[in-house]
Amino acid sequence: MGWGFAFMDSPFHEITGAVTAPRGFRAAAIGCGIKEGGQAGRPRDDLALIVSDFPAVGAATFTTNKIKAAPVRVSMDHLRSAELRGIIANSGNANACTGADGIRCAKRMTAAAAGALGWNEKQFLVCSTGRIGRELPIERIEKAVPELAGKLHADNGRAVARAIMTSDTFEKEIAIELSLAGKPVRIGGVAKGAGMINPDMATMLCFVTTDAAIAKRDLQKLFLESVEQSFNRITVDGDMSTNDTAICLANGQSGAELLQPQSALYDAFAHGLHFVTRQLARMIVEDGEGVSKFVEVHVKNAATCRDARKAAEAVANSMLVKCSWCGEDPNWGRVMDAVGYAAINVREEMVDIFYNGVVAAEHGMASDTPPEKLKEILRNKNFTVTIDLHLGTAEYKVFTTDLTTDYVKFNLSE
Amino acid sequence: MGWGFAFMDSPFHEITGAVTAPRGFRAAAIGCGIKEGGQAGRPRDDLALIVSDFPAVGAATFTTNKIKAAPVRVSMDHLRSAELRGIIANSGNANACTGADGIRCAKRMTAAAAGALGWNEKQFLVCSTGRIGRELPIERIEKAVPELAGKLHADNGRAVARAIMTSDTFEKEIAIELSLAGKPVRIGGVAKGAGMINPDMATMLCFVTTDAAIAKRDLQKLFLESVEQSFNRITVDGDMSTNDTAICLANGQSGAELLQPQSALYDAFAHGLHFVTRQLARMIVEDGEGVSKFVEVHVKNAATCRDARKAAEAVANSMLVKCSWCGEDPNWGRVMDAVGYAAINVREEMVDIFYNGVVAAEHGMASDTPPEKLKEILRNKNFTVTIDLHLGTAEYKVFTTDLTTDYVKFNLSE
Repeated sequence: MGWGFAFMDSPFHEITGAVTAPRGFRAAAIGCGIKEGGQAGRPRDDLALIVSDFPAVGAATFTTNKIKAAPVRVSMDHLRSAELRGIIANSGNANACTGADGIRCAKRMTAAAAGALGWNEKQFLVCSTGRIGRELPIERIEKAVPELAGKLHADNGRAVARAIMTSDTFEKEIAIELSLAGKPVRIGGVAKGAGMINPDMATMLCFVTTDAAIAKRDLQKLFLESVEQSFNRITVDGDMSTNDTAICLANGQSGAELLQPQSALYDAFAHGLHFVTRQLARMIVEDGEGVSKFVEVHVKNAATCRDARKAAEAVANSMLVKCSWCGEDPNWGRVMDAVGYAAINVREEMVDIFYNGVVAAEHGMASDTPPEKLKEILRNKNFTVTIDLHLGTAEYKVFTTDLTTDYVKFNLSE
Repeated sequence: MGWGFAFMDSPFHEITGAVTAPRGFRAAAIGCGIKEGGQAGRPRDDLALIVSDFPAVGAATFTTNKIKAAPVRVSMDHLRSAELRGIIANSGNANACTGADGIRCAKRMTAAAAGALGWNEKQFLVCSTGRIGRELPIERIEKAVPELAGKLHADNGRAVARAIMTSDTFEKEIAIELSLAGKPVRIGGVAKGAGMINPDMATMLCFVTTDAAIAKRDLQKLFLESVEQSFNRITVDGDMSTNDTAICLANGQSGAELLQPQSALYDAFAHGLHFVTRQLARMIVEDGEGVSKFVEVHVKNAATCRDARKAAEAVANSMLVKCSWCGEDPNWGRVMDAVGYAAINVREEMVDIFYNGVVAAEHGMASDTPPEKLKEILRNKNFTVTIDLHLGTAEYKVFTTDLTTDYVKFNLSE
């Protein structure tokens, strides 16, 4: 992908198992008939459960959309619990714009999970994804939870990744093992994405588990940083969902010592966590609805960080820019245009634009690079567009996609 | 269109002639080889000239994009002239991102027009539209101007509309005649649009002429109001061009008395001017690249005017909302989602959403309206989406389109 995931020398390696790779975590998935379809009379998996057999601390970030789905509101409340036990999630219905009944349904999901396992409902977080504004079939969920709980197993991490898919075309999962002072520590994750992918909680859902031992507030700080440099850096269509949620649970079962901020072990763990979230973010963009190009937009030497970000996002979300990428047209004029309306400090005569480091525009004007050479670069599936504003030192990167006829076709209806 | 153009009782009627309908205006168009294509060895018209045979006062608004094309910068300067004589405009090349040479070329266009007619270059405004970042073939333009000036005629208003087209599929032109205290006063206009249509100067180019007598500063005030309620209310793809320009010239040749602000005649003229700009704006949306639906987004009872506008524009520019319109899916959840991320005051439980007045969501939740009834409305080519925030009294309307696979195809390259 050329996204700078150069972790070759890092003290960790990938393993299998996704969210159940870390010790003390089990998971299960089942079909209870919320999603349509299914084959041979068997419904598609649409309900997932992740539990920690030992009390865990939790960190999470949620959509900044002012219209928040019921499960988001309930999870924001339950996140205050000192000892969490798990996550229950469904796909096929977002339980958003469902009023007080929706809140009750989200709470009943946590109560069903807690009841089946003998824990407290406040120890469960809850997520939903799917169509907005439809009543959640809570009875089906409640009826399925005992069987779901009975299926909990340390081999089912990948099944969770599949059960939370909506228009995703492949499971997004990863796990790594780090060695912290000789102790193996694991981090696992699953995510779902596809449409409605925008900075500020780009993923629809992301669940990360770890058997590291870390204080709740340290985990919250670290996980926010991790989301900032991963999910908040990706965009497919500029829309932001009502349900976006990223959760990290840490249960300390690795046996490694409690991570202390500003220590080498803490930094190594952060390194691993960032790798996990960036890989999941990358998979979400790769699975953007109907996309054909994966583009890094890199704004550098902006006057302020805000300017760098605004410019990068204006370019990454411009329909015209995205169409020209799809058409493999090195149309840097559309890039300039988007930078110009981003409401930032920009001086036209200072702007340079590069495709994969090859100069397309210099001092705000066409460079001498032959157009054929630039077209060659845009024929790649992955490339970088760099915009040098020459006004300061701030920079920002966004990972995005082109806009294709398939994207439109996918989104004609739900 | 159902856009509320209810001017049946107005004291004016449509006439032919576009920008040359008002007395004292002549126009011409010619092909000088900037645009590619053409048939039977004859290049497509790509250079247009509008002149007033008598000194005219001028008003204009320009793109708010910080990257402004050279002709925009030159016209902003020349607009200060007390006595204007005309407009020279080319299509096929935007003369944007062309540096100091671009400025020189834009000035040479005005000098060529002025030279051919014996006037001063500062009396001409200049516009360009087309691809950004390519050197303007100024010699071709200069060579063609004498012939162009020789073709000036009061019958050529429509030819200007054709010569400024880029990806437009039809000429956008209109003219009306009003009776002001028994004197016939005419207003004519042409415009081009298609891609890059966004509020804050939505049109790429719009030229309005009138033989009314009006003071320069009154015309400027009135024309800004007129643009605000027309071109600034339309959006196709949310992108804003480097070249957007709307110009109004008034030469006083009707013989009607000088319009005095806050008089009945002034209001009648304003009424007519607003009609002309709204009709041109409507045509631009109707000719949006590859669109199939024309949608009025009406936000009402917002806490502030800013909120009403932000919400309407977030909905009108959401790729997911626009795709669902194309798919004739009454997906009010996507509308709620866009309202939620518009960074406005919104209380989910207060929001009602209507399609053509039929309630789709009430108190932030699905209404009892049968989905089939809502789908029926979305099968129309034109419909209104009303979002009632129930928080205040501010309202805002935007006119927009759906997002289609054809839009993407049109914009793969230029």
